[in-house]
Amino acid sequence: MNNAEDHKWGETRLRVRYAETDQAGVVYHSNYLIWFEVGRVELCRDYGFNYRDMEREEDAHLPVVEARVKYHSPARYDDEIVVRTRVVQARTRAIKFAYEIFRASDGALLAEGETYHVVMNKQGRTRSFPMKYAEMIKNGKASADKQGGKESQ
Amino acid sequence: MNNAEDHKWGETRLRVRYAETDQAGVVYHSNYLIWFEVGRVELCRDYGFNYRDMEREEDAHLPVVEARVKYHSPARYDDEIVVRTRVVQARTRAIKFAYEIFRASDGALLAEGETYHVVMNKQGRTRSFPMKYAEMIKNGKASADKQGGKESQ
Amino acid sequence: MNNAEDHKWGETRLRVRYAETDQAGVVYHSNYLIWFEVGRVELCRDYGFNYRDMEREEDAHLPVVEARVKYHSPARYDDEIVVRTRVVQARTRAIKFAYEIFRASDGALLAEGETYHVVMNKQGRTRSFPMKYAEMIKNGKASADKQGGKESQ
Amino acid sequence: MNNAEDHKWGETRLRVRYAETDQAGVVYHSNYLIWFEVGRVELCRDYGFNYRDMEREEDAHLPVVEARVKYHSPARYDDEIVVRTRVVQARTRAIKFAYEIFRASDGALLAEGETYHVVMNKQGRTRSFPMKYAEMIKNGKASADKQGGKESQ
Repeated sequence: MNNAEDHKWGETRLRVRYAETDQAGVVYHSNYLIWFEVGRVELCRDYGFNYRDMEREEDAHLPVVEARVKYHSPARYDDEIVVRTRVVQARTRAIKFAYEIFRASDGALLAEGETYHVVMNKQGRTRSFPMKYAEMIKNGKASADKQGGKESQ
Repeated sequence: MNNAEDHKWGETRLRVRYAETDQAGVVYHSNYLIWFEVGRVELCRDYGFNYRDMEREEDAHLPVVEARVKYHSPARYDDEIVVRTRVVQARTRAIKFAYEIFRASDGALLAEGETYHVVMNKQGRTRSFPMKYAEMIKNGKASADKQGGKESQ
Repeated sequence: MNNAEDHKWGETRLRVRYAETDQAGVVYHSNYLIWFEVGRVELCRDYGFNYRDMEREEDAHLPVVEARVKYHSPARYDDEIVVRTRVVQARTRAIKFAYEIFRASDGALLAEGETYHVVMNKQGRTRSFPMKYAEMIKNGKASADKQGGKESQ
Repeated sequence: MNNAEDHKWGETRLRVRYAETDQAGVVYHSNYLIWFEVGRVELCRDYGFNYRDMEREEDAHLPVVEARVKYHSPARYDDEIVVRTRVVQARTRAIKFAYEIFRASDGALLAEGETYHVVMNKQGRTRSFPMKYAEMIKNGKASADKQGGKESQ
């Protein structure tokens, strides 16, 4: 589809919920995959589209077919978290995102990871990205640029 | 539909997952609603039906419209939990379940609660219980009796 | 402690995560208890304190001993949610909060509920609210007033 | 520590909860990490120890420092799931587990993955495996053999 190396990082923030901690006093590790999802959806919004609409209007879904997470330092209750997300590979029928999770207060890198998705319809058959959305992802660099403050330097 | 006072308790067991604990070292309180769901689904199985099939084949769903939980003592990681569930009210278009959550090792009552459900189709319109399922719930007492060991004295 | 009827509503917003939906296409009902927690913590922040600090510095915890939720209308994926929270009863060793959950786009009331908490130390022994925090809750009305835009009319 | 290639698979079963599904009608992908944890804990039990006791009595924790999941086919509500777990690398201060997730009804492979853990104390300092537990893992093959039906052929 396009040269993903041009894609810029999107950024969103969230606060750690008590429910996300475990008895070790840190965030339970599966929650980072949920935060990746939050980052991914907000990156789509930066790109000018709503992931929900793509599912509803185009019957195009992006199930995760592979996920990797490296945990560097634990997130803790009430930490403000920065989720940085970037497209690292965009193909006709697949897309790969990379993520970095930081603590806002001290900028510590808490985790990083990748998710690989194929484009599928509701019945689980692979399909191409709907044209409109493929274009928006292709134009990601440009539109992300316009957003200014929403991305990193 | 029927006199719910005749309904017997169903019983199922589960083990507390690390993911269900929080930084206070106990199970986070919202998980009890999930355990209630586990108890409810297993009670349906005792009654001879699969809640999944009722959704799929009859387009009859049981969304929760009201829930109440009283927390007596905390469940902890790796505890074996006993979920006891009972129908306390069964009407044409609604059903109420009661729950008791025990720790298996010492029989301590950890929590109790109720959920109230209406019967709805996928579009969110109230409807009657499908006949077949209404019958099975009506016959709950009898079929539960046959199960012997699955219920309490 | 104080006349809770004077307490104002605090307000915070969140966006529904894909992970919070279930196969009925709506938010799974236990997540509302987690949103209540988010509202409660943000209300504490409005009151001038951090719930995390109260746990850490004073060994004062607020476990939920009773919870009630009424579900009026389902929240859906990507909805922006408004959580309104209010102290309805503040005693020396216990506190009750009320919640209202709205969808931001159309102002629909999705759910409402209450949680009742006792003040405990880490070992699970009831204790009084730490003086400093009791004062801040008592002064809730005044400090909430100063915050202006953070509360509803 | 020992030649991990000798380690046998442990096996445990669970049933998909409604709360684990998402609006695509399948299990939300982060839940597989929680099922991996269930498999890991049950494998420890096969090895003759309780992960909870190791945390409590020895202050030895096994935080996840890296996780990988490949998703082959979606798990669905009420599916009975088989979690197979195996030690693939055991060192003095670290351990790696591999997982396979199957659907019981048709034996379909739904997902597979790995988690890598370091041994830490509560303060987050790396340490060695407590001797007693190192021994039990080392003897894993033998003790797993004795269990017979609990492992695959």
